[in-house]
Amino acid sequence: MTGLIFADVTMSLDGFITGPNDSVDQPIGEGGERLHEWLFELASFRRAHGLDGGHTGPDDDLLDEAFERSGATVMGRRMFDHGLGSWGDVPPFREPVFVLTHKVREPLVKSDTTFTFITDGIEKAVEMARTAAEEKDVSIGGGASVIQQALNARLLDEIQVHLVPIFMGGGVRLFENLAAEQPDLRCTRVVETTGVVHLRFEVAAAR
Amino acid sequence: MTGLIFADVTMSLDGFITGPNDSVDQPIGEGGERLHEWLFELASFRRAHGLDGGHTGPDDDLLDEAFERSGATVMGRRMFDHGLGSWGDVPPFREPVFVLTHKVREPLVKSDTTFTFITDGIEKAVEMARTAAEEKDVSIGGGASVIQQALNARLLDEIQVHLVPIFMGGGVRLFENLAAEQPDLRCTRVVETTGVVHLRFEVAAAR
Repeated sequence: MTGLIFADVTMSLDGFITGPNDSVDQPIGEGGERLHEWLFELASFRRAHGLDGGHTGPDDDLLDEAFERSGATVMGRRMFDHGLGSWGDVPPFREPVFVLTHKVREPLVKSDTTFTFITDGIEKAVEMARTAAEEKDVSIGGGASVIQQALNARLLDEIQVHLVPIFMGGGVRLFENLAAEQPDLRCTRVVETTGVVHLRFEVAAAR
Repeated sequence: MTGLIFADVTMSLDGFITGPNDSVDQPIGEGGERLHEWLFELASFRRAHGLDGGHTGPDDDLLDEAFERSGATVMGRRMFDHGLGSWGDVPPFREPVFVLTHKVREPLVKSDTTFTFITDGIEKAVEMARTAAEEKDVSIGGGASVIQQALNARLLDEIQVHLVPIFMGGGVRLFENLAAEQPDLRCTRVVETTGVVHLRFEVAAAR
């Protein structure tokens, strides 16, 4: 099956995907870099950012898999606003990105990433991303709100939680604001590496 | 090393250990039984409740391990109040239980479980439990508040989270009210079974 809708997200044991007080100046919140330390030195992470070198191994394989399968990304406006500065002139997506927003805006082209702004809601954004992705899958890039919208709209086929066993104590919580009726998930893979447990879940009967 | 302080707790993917609106009449909240379904038919669970039969296998091995290592339990008054009715005349602890409370009360003996009420705080309760457990470990039985107190007082050596991939959407949250400074955890074992991922974490430098 192609055209799966998936999310890959790093979460603390207490359920946060950023540290407290995230902002444009501090996109992952206070101390949020502790969540993402596992990523920064990976070869596939560096490659996406136009850098050579980096570590290989199981963490890198997982990240590479996510980059490889993704043909388009859907993200929220907050993630876009907060991330744009740090992504620089060569954003690490290198594929069409659809940004959910309330404000009409012309597409923004940055190197091999085109950001298209969607004001018609998540269903429309996912539909456009699916078309753009062709044979590949669609990544729900985040933030938490967009992942929650995708879950609530039953659009998500798969979510991989990179569980980092630390307590952030505050920040943006991944799993809240969920509709009362949720499909069950099924764990389809666990990969334990140094400092991270990668838990992949299939969302039952997403469509 | 003997005399470890450990907690074994079942949590939903969104971080809840009960369903919404837990009470004496509904100790695990609305829909909370979905969290604990993996337990009810296990041989070791049934045995603790004085029943024969039940399933064996990796889930049962894990639960049996927790029962076997535990020589005493510390729990909160809310867990005691909510649980007492459902535990019946033969509570499943079968070891000394120390209940944290604000009200002085005589010990309560129920079959081979003695409940002793401690008004001097978690350190004292754990100290008494450790003495009572002799060569065995001490189980922090819950609820969430007592596990949080144990984390905040740096009393916990190990926590095993039985992660059930469902969304409760509400209830008692396990990891909140945590002190700002928390030791990191280290994942020391992952066991994936049907419907549960058992994640064991060692708490760094707990003492």
